[in-house]
Amino acid sequence: MIVVMKRGSTPEQIEAVKQRIESHEGLQGHLSGGVERTVIGVVGQIFPELKDELERLEGVAEVVRISKPYKLSTREFRPHDTMVKVGDALIGGAEPVMMAGPCAVESEDLLMACAEQVKSEGAKILRGGAFKPRTSPYSFRGMGVQGLKLLAKAREKYGLPVVTEVMSTEDVGMVASYADMLQIGTRNAQNFNLLEAVGKTRKPVLLKRGFSSSYEEWLLAAEYVLSGGNNQVVLCERGIRTFEPFTRFTVDISAVPVIKKLSHLPVIVDPSHSTGSWELVTPISLAAIAAGAHGIIVDVHPNPTVAKCDGAQALTFDKFHDMSAKIKAVSMALKPAKVKQPA
Amino acid sequence: MIVVMKRGSTPEQIEAVKQRIESHEGLQGHLSGGVERTVIGVVGQIFPELKDELERLEGVAEVVRISKPYKLSTREFRPHDTMVKVGDALIGGAEPVMMAGPCAVESEDLLMACAEQVKSEGAKILRGGAFKPRTSPYSFRGMGVQGLKLLAKAREKYGLPVVTEVMSTEDVGMVASYADMLQIGTRNAQNFNLLEAVGKTRKPVLLKRGFSSSYEEWLLAAEYVLSGGNNQVVLCERGIRTFEPFTRFTVDISAVPVIKKLSHLPVIVDPSHSTGSWELVTPISLAAIAAGAHGIIVDVHPNPTVAKCDGAQALTFDKFHDMSAKIKAVSMALKPAKVKQPA
Amino acid sequence: MIVVMKRGSTPEQIEAVKQRIESHEGLQGHLSGGVERTVIGVVGQIFPELKDELERLEGVAEVVRISKPYKLSTREFRPHDTMVKVGDALIGGAEPVMMAGPCAVESEDLLMACAEQVKSEGAKILRGGAFKPRTSPYSFRGMGVQGLKLLAKAREKYGLPVVTEVMSTEDVGMVASYADMLQIGTRNAQNFNLLEAVGKTRKPVLLKRGFSSSYEEWLLAAEYVLSGGNNQVVLCERGIRTFEPFTRFTVDISAVPVIKKLSHLPVIVDPSHSTGSWELVTPISLAAIAAGAHGIIVDVHPNPTVAKCDGAQALTFDKFHDMSAKIKAVSMALKPAKVKQPA
Amino acid sequence: MIVVMKRGSTPEQIEAVKQRIESHEGLQGHLSGGVERTVIGVVGQIFPELKDELERLEGVAEVVRISKPYKLSTREFRPHDTMVKVGDALIGGAEPVMMAGPCAVESEDLLMACAEQVKSEGAKILRGGAFKPRTSPYSFRGMGVQGLKLLAKAREKYGLPVVTEVMSTEDVGMVASYADMLQIGTRNAQNFNLLEAVGKTRKPVLLKRGFSSSYEEWLLAAEYVLSGGNNQVVLCERGIRTFEPFTRFTVDISAVPVIKKLSHLPVIVDPSHSTGSWELVTPISLAAIAAGAHGIIVDVHPNPTVAKCDGAQALTFDKFHDMSAKIKAVSMALKPAKVKQPA
Repeated sequence: MIVVMKRGSTPEQIEAVKQRIESHEGLQGHLSGGVERTVIGVVGQIFPELKDELERLEGVAEVVRISKPYKLSTREFRPHDTMVKVGDALIGGAEPVMMAGPCAVESEDLLMACAEQVKSEGAKILRGGAFKPRTSPYSFRGMGVQGLKLLAKAREKYGLPVVTEVMSTEDVGMVASYADMLQIGTRNAQNFNLLEAVGKTRKPVLLKRGFSSSYEEWLLAAEYVLSGGNNQVVLCERGIRTFEPFTRFTVDISAVPVIKKLSHLPVIVDPSHSTGSWELVTPISLAAIAAGAHGIIVDVHPNPTVAKCDGAQALTFDKFHDMSAKIKAVSMALKPAKVKQPA
Repeated sequence: MIVVMKRGSTPEQIEAVKQRIESHEGLQGHLSGGVERTVIGVVGQIFPELKDELERLEGVAEVVRISKPYKLSTREFRPHDTMVKVGDALIGGAEPVMMAGPCAVESEDLLMACAEQVKSEGAKILRGGAFKPRTSPYSFRGMGVQGLKLLAKAREKYGLPVVTEVMSTEDVGMVASYADMLQIGTRNAQNFNLLEAVGKTRKPVLLKRGFSSSYEEWLLAAEYVLSGGNNQVVLCERGIRTFEPFTRFTVDISAVPVIKKLSHLPVIVDPSHSTGSWELVTPISLAAIAAGAHGIIVDVHPNPTVAKCDGAQALTFDKFHDMSAKIKAVSMALKPAKVKQPA
Repeated sequence: MIVVMKRGSTPEQIEAVKQRIESHEGLQGHLSGGVERTVIGVVGQIFPELKDELERLEGVAEVVRISKPYKLSTREFRPHDTMVKVGDALIGGAEPVMMAGPCAVESEDLLMACAEQVKSEGAKILRGGAFKPRTSPYSFRGMGVQGLKLLAKAREKYGLPVVTEVMSTEDVGMVASYADMLQIGTRNAQNFNLLEAVGKTRKPVLLKRGFSSSYEEWLLAAEYVLSGGNNQVVLCERGIRTFEPFTRFTVDISAVPVIKKLSHLPVIVDPSHSTGSWELVTPISLAAIAAGAHGIIVDVHPNPTVAKCDGAQALTFDKFHDMSAKIKAVSMALKPAKVKQPA
Repeated sequence: MIVVMKRGSTPEQIEAVKQRIESHEGLQGHLSGGVERTVIGVVGQIFPELKDELERLEGVAEVVRISKPYKLSTREFRPHDTMVKVGDALIGGAEPVMMAGPCAVESEDLLMACAEQVKSEGAKILRGGAFKPRTSPYSFRGMGVQGLKLLAKAREKYGLPVVTEVMSTEDVGMVASYADMLQIGTRNAQNFNLLEAVGKTRKPVLLKRGFSSSYEEWLLAAEYVLSGGNNQVVLCERGIRTFEPFTRFTVDISAVPVIKKLSHLPVIVDPSHSTGSWELVTPISLAAIAAGAHGIIVDVHPNPTVAKCDGAQALTFDKFHDMSAKIKAVSMALKPAKVKQPA
């Protein structure tokens, strides 16, 4: 942390800042005078509140943080890629993982049809919402426990591990008893009690980015899970809120390479919820894979016009088939060996 | 709801859309042919999923919603202003209500000093956080139940009703047993389980706007509370996330007149958390009152440099005194009688 | 400027950074070793490209700017408030200045009616667009020179100085020959050639904030004008682009106190173009004045439903009358003397 | 256009709206009564100001536009893809086109070295700025005419057509006399005079998206060029402004498939200016190609640490070589034939 003094700050003010810093055990202030102004480097174990404290002192122009506030999720803490295992699927390696299924579990027939289809196209994890966070209280909000039971049944029948959302601390244990991976939705991305609760389980967590979370806030949300002792976290870019009204959200593909740089955790992309439009799902999935994502999570539905939830963004089985083929092609094209010998 | 057909859509496509609409009990489709394209008005009880359903049909260019998805919070549902009573304070009338206190309850001494001070300046409600949502798990997260007990003690001593945040469905009953008003924070603005839980109590609710919620989403969040049977909801603008990095958030003063137009619920402003800077608290408070806000909620602290939470934005007692005087002056200046006879 | 080295950067890397800094004449690098990492303070006349240069060197984690890139517009450069004189109007003092008139000059009758009305309500400057920047090439784009002539005629008849927009470097001389103040619109806020061109005139400039300009970019735009030798610049907050679709833009009232803190230039607010809705103009004007703005600029029209440009946001004469009375009341209520003795 | 009346609007109000519509020659209003409210469809040649006009009438709740305001750039106007020819390069076909070169022309040696390198890697167009729009007046602003001459020299020597930015209406003729393609930068994306000026030339135009322009505004900017008679326009996504501070802008990859859906004009991506970081250039370029972009435009520099402009984002020659190979691989993988027979 660096304290930048105002031009013309007095020696007394500078000394007072230094003393304030050193009044905290284990902290030291190092002066560095310039032509125009003095800066004071703070050395030691910095706590989050220190910035506010120092910024209000007389003569201080600005306090600049120079270390990241997240720790356990950083490359500096753990240089090697974390691999997250969900059933037999391994997320975080060279092979991108496809997660797919209906937005919401609506019925046994629907779920089984989706599971069969997505498995045959190479998906490794079945998605499906039993508890649905909905902006309006008047929308369909999921089948609840009955939906979880159907997911468990689909896992048994098709051998696919399942990922599903948990919305409330009270439900964590129950959802964890059915699911292979717990999803934290974008609207709960800063529901800190919920993050802590899944951090106490030993189930893998799919942590969606809050649609207005910065990378830093997203990694701090992961930090809540990791600091509970659960290091099986997969980060999922799902679109951020911007001024553009045409797409539901703006998918931030740069999140893929940036998160891979900052953190050892795997990062995947949700092209369905980010765009809100099935026509954009294939190009965005391909973009995600080309940018290096460890996987994607996609909504499919045999008959999207009657879907109870987000039908506009679901791929039909045919479209999903086409997309899967293209994903394989892009993925193979970028395998290290191939790149070294481009025709 | 209006279905806009593409130019050149066929009579068969138009008929198919009409039939699909009318396949839902109680819905009718009214054709209206133009020079360039056909539009179909949908009449009847529209459900949220209908838009997605119709948008995927052949020949459809766009589906446009023309009624608001929120109901109980609208002026159309209830034309007259709702008044919310918290202890003796009445929010929603001609007199703006000041809520003030420390960001977090840190100690009994601190809380009592604040309570005494804010009461003497005319505040009607004491604020103070016992459970603090913090972006980083390594920040101070509040005194918990002990903080609630101190708030109750301050109420008894100073006769001020108290508002405090509840972060988890499990805690709603407990917090409600101490507090006079339950606050839902910005990061829980779309924690739908929590909204439902406070909707089942009969305590007044202070519902902060999600920092990326549109007005519509904010009113739909209120709808979760209202549809639970609790109509004592006060909306609080607390800044939205924008590209501007200088202020912590961008306070959206237009929210005040817009919400007053759309809804019968009272609307107040939080100048402290929106700006993140004590220097901006007074001007933004005055702006809020001038724009017609039903009140403000402000952080105060006798010694902000040692505050355990958000010290940068807290007003000292002196500054709070100055601000209170100015608020009274602006408020009086805009009383109907005075305006009619400007010098 | 501070160079933060990565943890584990080598002494050779640190030395290389220091040498690179000192390879530029007049720059010095000051090392400051911490427990965790080394930081290097850069002392001397820093040029904008240095950050990029140093950030690419081996072992560098981050380069942090600690001084502002704008100079002539800062309080540090000129501590006292700049007053801008337009005709007899003085902008930047204790008395807020009202600028008002039609969005576009449409006809002589319209302009004269508006001029008469706004003058009688206390406006000091007449606004009116002759060259209109329009998002669509198919919209009405102003009367051009003929509009300028009408503005000059209105000035003569009513004794009001006029402000009008200039859109092109080629037009600067011509517009300046008619207008008392040159307006740079939001869409030209980073049209650097145009900024330079008005910087070479000696006419006062009304510099609207780009709807996506940060405060820093806005002040740098002013810097283009000031560095040309023209220090008669008034900054105008006119709404920024956010995710909220209800209002045309989100007016950022915090810009008023922030700009007053950072800069000596006067700052006013445009409640018409920022909100896009006449119903919001009065509350936002009052908010601006209460927050300390040096003035407002408002669209008025005797019959807004037939306005050729932005009719939705124009105040009728009646509404303008009401608003003017309220502005006076708020302004008087906040005069220093009154505040010191609140009833 | 659809006029939605308020619930409870009177027959007189409805009639008045209808009459107002029909007072404009060639417009008709079609009533459509619902259970809850009346809507009036407007049929005929709608002009942009009509929305504002109708919205202020008594009893009107909302006016909803249902046709797009842009015309010449739409798929409806021209269903087939436009191909833009720049020298021998053809943009808009199956083969993505690479444009590359230094951010700014700094010297003859630099430019020639870049031209040789990018040509050998398969780039079809040489980029290089002679006039540089810079946020600060104190930054390097380009070599001007001398830079244009060097670009022309590089074209002769290496047979690469050149694209360079024009910033001012006065310079259009001069820049067009040296360049093969005129670039309109993001900060001039709504400089309507400049757009008109390049629309009057017959040079291909590279139109960057304004960093806060919606797709609609971007296409309306293109409309200014097209309506001048110049239909050789290539659209370039270059990142939009969001709340995320880590990247300079947020590149919006969805723009690629959306623009291809809405418009017949080619669309490319600038991974350098959008991210501001060389480390992100390769993944974002690959994402763009995978999403279907017709090309990319990239900054390269033999020694980025001494670049006079945006060194942080330039690729070294080595990195550019690696990227080019990967782009070819992804591009080939997505060729129709290959996809039909995935292993």
